[in-house]
Amino acid sequence: MSMTNAYEPGSAELNADERALIARRERLLGPAYRLFYERPVHVVRGEGVWLYDVDGEAYLDVYNNVPSVGHCHPHVVEALCRQARILNTHTRYLHENVLDYAEKLLAKFPAELAHVMFTCTGSEANDLAYRIARRSTGGTGFIVTQLAYHGGTHVIAELSPSLGGHVQLGDHVRTVPAPDAYRNGGRELGAVFANNVRQAIEDLRTQGIKPAALLVDTIFSSDGVFSDPAGFLAEAVAVIRATGGLFIADEVQPGFGRTGAHMWGFQRHGIVPDMVSMGKPMGDGHPMAGLVVKPELVREFGKSRYFNTFGGNAVSAAVGLAVLEVIEREGLMANALEVGGHLHNGLRQLAKQHSIIGDVRGAGLFIGLELVRDRATQQPATEETARVVNGLREKRVLISSAGPNANILKIRPPLPFSKENAELFLSTMNEVLAALQPHH
Amino acid sequence: MSMTNAYEPGSAELNADERALIARRERLLGPAYRLFYERPVHVVRGEGVWLYDVDGEAYLDVYNNVPSVGHCHPHVVEALCRQARILNTHTRYLHENVLDYAEKLLAKFPAELAHVMFTCTGSEANDLAYRIARRSTGGTGFIVTQLAYHGGTHVIAELSPSLGGHVQLGDHVRTVPAPDAYRNGGRELGAVFANNVRQAIEDLRTQGIKPAALLVDTIFSSDGVFSDPAGFLAEAVAVIRATGGLFIADEVQPGFGRTGAHMWGFQRHGIVPDMVSMGKPMGDGHPMAGLVVKPELVREFGKSRYFNTFGGNAVSAAVGLAVLEVIEREGLMANALEVGGHLHNGLRQLAKQHSIIGDVRGAGLFIGLELVRDRATQQPATEETARVVNGLREKRVLISSAGPNANILKIRPPLPFSKENAELFLSTMNEVLAALQPHH
Repeated sequence: MSMTNAYEPGSAELNADERALIARRERLLGPAYRLFYERPVHVVRGEGVWLYDVDGEAYLDVYNNVPSVGHCHPHVVEALCRQARILNTHTRYLHENVLDYAEKLLAKFPAELAHVMFTCTGSEANDLAYRIARRSTGGTGFIVTQLAYHGGTHVIAELSPSLGGHVQLGDHVRTVPAPDAYRNGGRELGAVFANNVRQAIEDLRTQGIKPAALLVDTIFSSDGVFSDPAGFLAEAVAVIRATGGLFIADEVQPGFGRTGAHMWGFQRHGIVPDMVSMGKPMGDGHPMAGLVVKPELVREFGKSRYFNTFGGNAVSAAVGLAVLEVIEREGLMANALEVGGHLHNGLRQLAKQHSIIGDVRGAGLFIGLELVRDRATQQPATEETARVVNGLREKRVLISSAGPNANILKIRPPLPFSKENAELFLSTMNEVLAALQPHH
Repeated sequence: MSMTNAYEPGSAELNADERALIARRERLLGPAYRLFYERPVHVVRGEGVWLYDVDGEAYLDVYNNVPSVGHCHPHVVEALCRQARILNTHTRYLHENVLDYAEKLLAKFPAELAHVMFTCTGSEANDLAYRIARRSTGGTGFIVTQLAYHGGTHVIAELSPSLGGHVQLGDHVRTVPAPDAYRNGGRELGAVFANNVRQAIEDLRTQGIKPAALLVDTIFSSDGVFSDPAGFLAEAVAVIRATGGLFIADEVQPGFGRTGAHMWGFQRHGIVPDMVSMGKPMGDGHPMAGLVVKPELVREFGKSRYFNTFGGNAVSAAVGLAVLEVIEREGLMANALEVGGHLHNGLRQLAKQHSIIGDVRGAGLFIGLELVRDRATQQPATEETARVVNGLREKRVLISSAGPNANILKIRPPLPFSKENAELFLSTMNEVLAALQPHH
């Protein structure tokens, strides 16, 4: 989610086709749209872990978590097309799909989380969680991490400090440092995080604001990917609950099996959230998202209707069901665990030759690779990371960066990523890091 | 959007299948979900203007504006499937689809509205308009009509009084009566509406709140369908602009040719909005929406990125393009005008036999039919309207109601609605109204 790799005019040689497309984007879409890479990629086709550009060149996708079961997965596309040909209606009529899907999805959660409500985007799911949290607690205060991204609606942008200074956080929002074991680590990480949450709650209270919820991405993706030690979230969850506030797990990034050992990121921490929002990987690219809640939280909220026109429609439900089927049939969680482990080890091997690698962390196929100029001082290698991201793109490997200094590579490929794909990534990374040395 | 036709347990004979589905909904989806009709319809298939239930019975769809070019239109489904098989990615790579679609869509607007931003739902489009309006005007006050519905995100629910007392309007929100020519009509309708807006602005100012925008559904769907006299919006638009505020047209309901003579509802009033939000009919059921803006309004906003993961993706853009192609190729606007006129006249004929019909109004295939107990007193026929809606459902014609007293039938079928379909609707309506007489 960093802006470092946005396209900057003139920073790379562009051909006529690329210049024309960029000019059309500026003219038609306006200034809020961003492109990846100094030389943006003009994609035309996707399949599995591969994207293809207009010249037919293949790019290894090590970044996109939306096509989570693989670009254009045939089983998902087939489910989409089959249902789109037959019926596509909303939830004000009776239909099995939304119920079959809700049943299968809820079975992946602890029993306390017994209702699911469907939206179209993760932003909408978090916005709905915000509404329910306020309604059920009577509080208005929210606590998020310092570089969180939770979405683009007005109230959720106010809870997304990663959007930067042009978007104001609300007066009712407090930020806490993400639990960064590399920079502030050690055994006390959970206690430190919990203490920061406690202080944020106190600060809200001194302003007369009752806390509604602690909302976190359970893999802390935009903060820089923080996964360990497993369990570090438990104490903070206890702290927010002790004040009558809720714990909302944003699973838009880690959810749907990416972390390998678990279907959801929160499970790594041995906790049961009060609400869980889901998005990006849910439909392998189809616009769908949702919120799982404890029933007692929506008893009051349910007195007003919540209607999401497209949410849970017959087509979206069919797609969601197909995605869950693929995750199971193809053993994608086991693959995430195994290939993720292989990749993790391979990156640790690379670290022996490249001192710029300061840390390798993450779970399953969600890995953060932090680049530093000096391992002792941990000075962020921000410019080098941008060169690595653009260098990998030139070698047709797609990736991006995160963190306050944009020096953390976010590695989160489609889940069917194989050991061979991992080897290709590692060898290309080795080349790009080697080419970096002279400037270092 | 009225809750009058929500399912109420025990109010109709349900079979085992229906009871089982309803029980599953309550268990899985929770209390915020609503069903249409005393006896909900269990749909399994859709085609053109028809929906089919689990027993194979056909229902004439006189209500759903989402499948605007017809349920499961083959050209749209084909575009969806073709693109979904090839590539489905976001707007951070270069791709023609989003640009081809943006170009074709913007060509349908006045030249001043030169940028389009894509979202997944009308709620998100209005939420984005809200953010841009605040950012570009520096104001925070919003004015909406008394029974408006603009969406379900937190800030947009605060601008949607039709959600009822369980959802609080914001302190920065003022409501004005919708321009109802039937109840408060006459030539001065535009002046009265403008004066109400002026008073709302004054009221905001006395509270120290600077107005940001006047936001209206240009056909006033949930308020009760108000279309005439054409031009009545112009004066209010001038009033809000004179204070530095913006005029935002919500075209989620009337947009994409439904009103027949125009592609957009605002065109009926000879005005050019500052922003236009679109949704429901945009993708014939596919989750997509958007916001068209004047470029000067997003100059500041564009300094922060706005990224909507699924908005404008390659598949959504292909679908949107196909919908515009169908509207053109099949002459759906001309059809809306012609069949809408036929339907309008037919309903006026029915009014000669049924005194319960107080008013017939609307434009093209967006018609409001107001039922009253007495034409002189205009007493709303609320209970009778519920009986008509449920009576039509029993005769397999699908419709719903709107307005503060839920006594206004909302007639807005898929646009390929034919004269034969209109005749079937009129004759069924005649039967249902006739059956109502004894209780009247």
